[in-house]
Amino acid sequence: MAAQKFRIESDLLGEREVPQDAYYGVHTLRAKENFQISGSTVSSYPELIVALAAVKQAAAEANAELGLLSPALYDSISAACIEIRDGRLHDQFVVDIIQGGAGTSTNMNANEVICNRALELMGHQRGEYGFLHPNEHVNLAQSTNDVYPTALRIATLFAIEHLIEAMTILHAAFAAKALEFAGMLKLGRTQLQDAVPMTLGQEFSTYAVMVEEDMARLGEASVLIREINLGATAIGTGITAHPDYAQKALVALNRITGLELSTAPNLIEATQDCGAFVQISGVLKRIAVKLSKICNDLRLLSSGPRAGFGEINLPPMQAGSSIMPGKVNPVIPEVMNQIAFEVFGNDITVTFAAEGGQLQLNAFEPIIASSLFRSFKHLTNGCTTLAERCIKGITANPEKLRETLDRSLALATALNPYIGYKNSTSVAAEANALGTTIREVVLRRRLLTKAQLDEALRPEALIQPRVYAGLISRAESPVSGDIVQ
Amino acid sequence: MAAQKFRIESDLLGEREVPQDAYYGVHTLRAKENFQISGSTVSSYPELIVALAAVKQAAAEANAELGLLSPALYDSISAACIEIRDGRLHDQFVVDIIQGGAGTSTNMNANEVICNRALELMGHQRGEYGFLHPNEHVNLAQSTNDVYPTALRIATLFAIEHLIEAMTILHAAFAAKALEFAGMLKLGRTQLQDAVPMTLGQEFSTYAVMVEEDMARLGEASVLIREINLGATAIGTGITAHPDYAQKALVALNRITGLELSTAPNLIEATQDCGAFVQISGVLKRIAVKLSKICNDLRLLSSGPRAGFGEINLPPMQAGSSIMPGKVNPVIPEVMNQIAFEVFGNDITVTFAAEGGQLQLNAFEPIIASSLFRSFKHLTNGCTTLAERCIKGITANPEKLRETLDRSLALATALNPYIGYKNSTSVAAEANALGTTIREVVLRRRLLTKAQLDEALRPEALIQPRVYAGLISRAESPVSGDIVQ
Amino acid sequence: MAAQKFRIESDLLGEREVPQDAYYGVHTLRAKENFQISGSTVSSYPELIVALAAVKQAAAEANAELGLLSPALYDSISAACIEIRDGRLHDQFVVDIIQGGAGTSTNMNANEVICNRALELMGHQRGEYGFLHPNEHVNLAQSTNDVYPTALRIATLFAIEHLIEAMTILHAAFAAKALEFAGMLKLGRTQLQDAVPMTLGQEFSTYAVMVEEDMARLGEASVLIREINLGATAIGTGITAHPDYAQKALVALNRITGLELSTAPNLIEATQDCGAFVQISGVLKRIAVKLSKICNDLRLLSSGPRAGFGEINLPPMQAGSSIMPGKVNPVIPEVMNQIAFEVFGNDITVTFAAEGGQLQLNAFEPIIASSLFRSFKHLTNGCTTLAERCIKGITANPEKLRETLDRSLALATALNPYIGYKNSTSVAAEANALGTTIREVVLRRRLLTKAQLDEALRPEALIQPRVYAGLISRAESPVSGDIVQ
Amino acid sequence: MAAQKFRIESDLLGEREVPQDAYYGVHTLRAKENFQISGSTVSSYPELIVALAAVKQAAAEANAELGLLSPALYDSISAACIEIRDGRLHDQFVVDIIQGGAGTSTNMNANEVICNRALELMGHQRGEYGFLHPNEHVNLAQSTNDVYPTALRIATLFAIEHLIEAMTILHAAFAAKALEFAGMLKLGRTQLQDAVPMTLGQEFSTYAVMVEEDMARLGEASVLIREINLGATAIGTGITAHPDYAQKALVALNRITGLELSTAPNLIEATQDCGAFVQISGVLKRIAVKLSKICNDLRLLSSGPRAGFGEINLPPMQAGSSIMPGKVNPVIPEVMNQIAFEVFGNDITVTFAAEGGQLQLNAFEPIIASSLFRSFKHLTNGCTTLAERCIKGITANPEKLRETLDRSLALATALNPYIGYKNSTSVAAEANALGTTIREVVLRRRLLTKAQLDEALRPEALIQPRVYAGLISRAESPVSGDIVQ
Repeated sequence: MAAQKFRIESDLLGEREVPQDAYYGVHTLRAKENFQISGSTVSSYPELIVALAAVKQAAAEANAELGLLSPALYDSISAACIEIRDGRLHDQFVVDIIQGGAGTSTNMNANEVICNRALELMGHQRGEYGFLHPNEHVNLAQSTNDVYPTALRIATLFAIEHLIEAMTILHAAFAAKALEFAGMLKLGRTQLQDAVPMTLGQEFSTYAVMVEEDMARLGEASVLIREINLGATAIGTGITAHPDYAQKALVALNRITGLELSTAPNLIEATQDCGAFVQISGVLKRIAVKLSKICNDLRLLSSGPRAGFGEINLPPMQAGSSIMPGKVNPVIPEVMNQIAFEVFGNDITVTFAAEGGQLQLNAFEPIIASSLFRSFKHLTNGCTTLAERCIKGITANPEKLRETLDRSLALATALNPYIGYKNSTSVAAEANALGTTIREVVLRRRLLTKAQLDEALRPEALIQPRVYAGLISRAESPVSGDIVQ
Repeated sequence: MAAQKFRIESDLLGEREVPQDAYYGVHTLRAKENFQISGSTVSSYPELIVALAAVKQAAAEANAELGLLSPALYDSISAACIEIRDGRLHDQFVVDIIQGGAGTSTNMNANEVICNRALELMGHQRGEYGFLHPNEHVNLAQSTNDVYPTALRIATLFAIEHLIEAMTILHAAFAAKALEFAGMLKLGRTQLQDAVPMTLGQEFSTYAVMVEEDMARLGEASVLIREINLGATAIGTGITAHPDYAQKALVALNRITGLELSTAPNLIEATQDCGAFVQISGVLKRIAVKLSKICNDLRLLSSGPRAGFGEINLPPMQAGSSIMPGKVNPVIPEVMNQIAFEVFGNDITVTFAAEGGQLQLNAFEPIIASSLFRSFKHLTNGCTTLAERCIKGITANPEKLRETLDRSLALATALNPYIGYKNSTSVAAEANALGTTIREVVLRRRLLTKAQLDEALRPEALIQPRVYAGLISRAESPVSGDIVQ
Repeated sequence: MAAQKFRIESDLLGEREVPQDAYYGVHTLRAKENFQISGSTVSSYPELIVALAAVKQAAAEANAELGLLSPALYDSISAACIEIRDGRLHDQFVVDIIQGGAGTSTNMNANEVICNRALELMGHQRGEYGFLHPNEHVNLAQSTNDVYPTALRIATLFAIEHLIEAMTILHAAFAAKALEFAGMLKLGRTQLQDAVPMTLGQEFSTYAVMVEEDMARLGEASVLIREINLGATAIGTGITAHPDYAQKALVALNRITGLELSTAPNLIEATQDCGAFVQISGVLKRIAVKLSKICNDLRLLSSGPRAGFGEINLPPMQAGSSIMPGKVNPVIPEVMNQIAFEVFGNDITVTFAAEGGQLQLNAFEPIIASSLFRSFKHLTNGCTTLAERCIKGITANPEKLRETLDRSLALATALNPYIGYKNSTSVAAEANALGTTIREVVLRRRLLTKAQLDEALRPEALIQPRVYAGLISRAESPVSGDIVQ
Repeated sequence: MAAQKFRIESDLLGEREVPQDAYYGVHTLRAKENFQISGSTVSSYPELIVALAAVKQAAAEANAELGLLSPALYDSISAACIEIRDGRLHDQFVVDIIQGGAGTSTNMNANEVICNRALELMGHQRGEYGFLHPNEHVNLAQSTNDVYPTALRIATLFAIEHLIEAMTILHAAFAAKALEFAGMLKLGRTQLQDAVPMTLGQEFSTYAVMVEEDMARLGEASVLIREINLGATAIGTGITAHPDYAQKALVALNRITGLELSTAPNLIEATQDCGAFVQISGVLKRIAVKLSKICNDLRLLSSGPRAGFGEINLPPMQAGSSIMPGKVNPVIPEVMNQIAFEVFGNDITVTFAAEGGQLQLNAFEPIIASSLFRSFKHLTNGCTTLAERCIKGITANPEKLRETLDRSLALATALNPYIGYKNSTSVAAEANALGTTIREVVLRRRLLTKAQLDEALRPEALIQPRVYAGLISRAESPVSGDIVQ
């Protein structure tokens, strides 16, 4: 029975038994054995597999057009690639995602699976590489060093798309809350200390703006990702490729993927350079910084219920404690914080890997890929989760907002244009010492009349610039009592 | 049929249908829904699950001894924990490893699975919490805030053990090569420039020493990890626990796990502090620095085969290129480099998460745990892989080693004690300009006789300190030609 | 005598003696005492001081136009600002660059120095704030929270300019070498293993391209930096400012600085958001990744002189060793590597600081600023140093380049289109085993005629794509001997 | 006049004019010109200079004892070293701290300054190296590669001492506050949500414990730093050194420095390994994590004055705002946060530099040194500043503490042992919904009598474990109403 279950394949190291039902071959088998690191295989990254199949299909098409691949071979390769792009045979991508060899094992895995499936489609047995060969035909005019980075870029573009979708949902959630809370006056805070008035709507609109701006940054960075090095072959010189191959493969690839890829102007540079991945990782880090900051804010604003800021309520999603009854915790913002921390770590991994490239190639693209894809996936899931399971359900405590505003010493700032910074400072200090309000001290000291004070502290006037009539005289004459010597 | 397939459970948010065959309950169900981030669940971390079960068992034992838990309830809880420690029911730990809530969902998942299994063992139905309650009994005198960190520490100690085992194998592989290559003289290099002689055995022995030292560092750091906060309950004050509980639970836990844990002297501090995790992550980073440096060296020393250093040969593990025939690449060192880059990134994640703790708790321990466990796992697999698939098969090219040594200008250093630094500099410069050897220039210039030169450049004399007889006169008289003015 | 040497100033904490000759005042004095951390003061950052003065001048101009500041006061403030922009009084900026308070102390330092200088210009004594007040007039309609970030952005734009100048020099140096080395064929390397041919000129042209691309990235990122929040005042609501102030101040500031700044569309968001700094730091990190990679390459290519790659020679800049005579080390690339490592670290500092912002402000901008400015300065100096003291003096060893190329097994790749990947693999393996050349094995095995072989290995054909005539037949028929089973 | 102002010195690159009054020589001059990066020179690191002089003195003593250096030369070298250790001539260390060459320039700077000062002491002119030579005598049996790391270790040990002193002050400040606030009950918080009671004294005692523990960690890590490689010379083989030299130099160095240094067992490993620096940097990171966390807490606890937690008051150190009168900000904790962020960044720099070591040496120790020394200096200054300018002046708001405790729903936890988790949950939920207290709901529902409730919520009982009499029955019988199905 064993004779039926294995086929023999060989490479430069000798012969090996490959499971008869495997679409992968000897190169994949060795890589599977060599890299038993994370237990997570390429099969967990469907978009990378789809991207690889698209590249292989485009390469075959270009070679066929150039007369370097027969129509029959092209047809079968192309058909196999289409199946894989449709989600078939993904379980045959069995190499660990963390692998040495600059992605060669992933590329060979693709070559072998495509080859064996194409052989089947042609009526041959798997492993009959005399009819169609993984390297000579499926990999024709290609090298891992152009195929793998090109596929990574395509998969990254897919990932960008998903992340932007999730951020769009999150943006909408913040924008809706900004509208809902538009009229609610509250105290702004700087350095965690009471500052000047604003509205809760303004607070949430900043979150909407942050997310929106970062979507724009993602879009900008994706331009760099669109530049591929297909046609570079081994080191960028295009050795073994036809002079028209790169251009034809690009056209085919754009048609297949629906993307707007372009060929890098200097393929030698493009083959060794991971700068675009460093930059996109930097943008993900920027996004994570903002999301973490927002979640920190949400946790602060909802702190309490009785001994915290208590300005907003996050929707309760689960019991917060196994011991403290009734406790509800900000678990959704907390998970986003943690995703952000991961993204920061992944960015360091990407930086090390990119810096470690040597001469004509960066051997460490596999860890760049797995780090980036993890960042993308977790951020995407995190944004959706944050929107759906937290932001949409947030409610405000308008009485608490108003009460802390009225008692705030920070209203003294609004008096600067009327009584000057030094007088305002003195008023604030006295109100603080006596535990009373700015309003009371001003009136008692007769610094302004009640009408003037009402005007100065008019709510709508506090949250935007305003015209202060006739104040120029203040600036022209010495402020009494200012000179201290 | 639906009525049979679900049971109703409730929490402070209301009722939910839980699959009838699930051992987990409503809290787990909500957490499963809330955290759809990584797709990787607690079930992938068997050592954490085993650790959780050990803690629960120890807590039950302590409570039973104190008369706070009846023998019957204790027996069933204990039996359920033992099953889980034996590897059963791990598939019931369905919460995403990346979760908000400071680990509460993981703790509740454990409480519910243990509770429902214990109920079964007592002859009840799952969900009949009137007989045994996940919070009131399984979690008795416990909080996530002491259970979860304690379990993380236990799982970390298991992980340290595995890593030390793998490093032991790696150390032995380096030590064996050090012995094998003991007699092979070669040129040392500093700043990638030719330096002074050494042996290839010395080179490999440094790698053995590095690994050995890091094993010692791991051992030291594990002392900090042994300090647990079980008995702290919610914030370290021990609220709801019996005064003797912490001590009794510790004794039980040590017996169950076979570890030498101790209770932290200040439980409030211990409950909010992640310093031990930061430190162990720092040690993992140190290990990764060394392993990456070693692998960089291996890649340099084996560079070639014809246009590189070519001093050693790594065993070929797979074809190196899909396009370049016969190329073999250093894929195993490359995978270790990438593991190191991941560990550096994970350390940043841990740092952010630890720094983000607030007041009485660090809510971000789940990401600390998943980052650390990934570092441990990949380093452990990486060390074994490096030893078995690379180091053990390394061979040397002694002729190449000897040839480069003989032609080296660096031998001039050995002449310092005989002819002085300035003369040696001049000799080296001339040999370089003429493309000849140090030996030839010295003889031609008659700086030393052939016999003196043979003595000065005696191989065994070049790789260790030596006595230079009668040299004091050199230091006493001005070196001729030295004064330049 | 003491009475003459101090003046008394006061703030909300009480009175303090300020040195009579100091242009700074009580706020600066307290900050100087509070922050004794790095010993490096704002005075070491002349571009930040210039930027602050420009902002203050613009604000005064806007307020004067709006009738809120008298012509006399405006004239004196403006004159003082112009002096500072000309480089005067920089020694009066005595606050430590690492400071708490979100930059308030730096802003107050500027307010006080400008105020006291303006008082002098008006014929008053320093400290006679009744005539002109640091907060009420110099800081009119301003807050640290808009002034400081605006000044940081302006200083950053200056820094970008300097860096681009230095990169331009570096780019030119690489481009010149690319031209000089254009005809020199050599072996490319992937994963430190011999790969396929290229020219040394191509190698250096990739470095030129990398630098050029990064200059483009810097330009893109500078767009984000141009967006300022002047007019936001305390938290972005513009409290205390006139509705037309922001626009007028912007116009003035653009005229004064010659920059093309714009006002952020949402000032509340802009006031709390450090995203632009995170992004520019990410771009600096990207630049550093490339420069470090390039320097790693230069150190590899110049390794030797006898036991390394020895393909190029870096110009000797200093003796390399205090003990090894004649040794010359790649000290200039090494210093650039270290600058890159610093930039990576600074990026982490910026990330932590940006993530740490809370609610309406980020209190940690001072450390963002000092980290960024250090990165800029060191990169700028590093690029110039690298160009002038290394790249321009590099020479090649064409014989060594040619010799390693001729002996290389990698030429087998060029035979793929002629004899197929499997045959090529076998040829390479045999040449490796026998220590002979590809050429010799092919001829002996009669796989190609000498004429065919000469054509296949024609130098100019090896470094670019080519047309392989009549090869389609190969792809149509099974490759003999390929099927292994 | 010019003839008088310069002397001519030469090295392998040729002759150069050195300023006649300079103690440094041609090697330093070239390095000064080569490295114009940071503008910060070795002269800013007095402890490194002192350490270098100690090493040179010890080496000279060992060589003299071995008869390799005449008494006269030894005496003058030793005298020059003693002067430098006393703080003289530090301005002659003019090389940029960021330098290529693995520290060679710093070592040569020391050699030259010591040599020229010693020449003067012997009655010769500076530059008359025929009488005493920087390399042949001052550097006798030494290499940068053992001198520089040894000096770095000594300087690091000095730095550790200073940091421990500063942490001792900080620890005492926290401990004093812990005592002062011992009786003040307050609400603990987990995940920023109200949790269970504790005292403010307990809160501050955790900070004392954190600092104390980190002092212990520093002490442990310093053991690794004490291991030096003096005697290794160029690569660890001890080439040019006498067999007894390393031991004699160690003894001398310990006597001179008062430290307990030891010689590394494997000098080849020790010469290339930066593990001890990575580890100490990791400990500094750990310290920074804790200090940042503590400062985050202090800023939270003092948030307000009216719209925040308002539990404690930090002493006002300066006016907080240039626009908001009376505002006082937590500027001292903020500066410590920023120091921590720097330390995190520096740790990454150290990690990159350590990982970048190749073969027998790490060329990047200069950036490791400058990063570490900056971390040490800023942390040391930060700890003192934090203690003196913040912690010592902190006051509490006991009424606020008590009021939030009494109103807290978290008291429900204390009822778990009396009425069970489920009942407690229900009580907490109702109190929350009605805006009332736990106490009121329990009494109204008659779950406990007033006496029972008083006992359950007795303040001193809430902050430690306790014995719950007769509760075993609860655990034995089903909790009524618990079964939900």
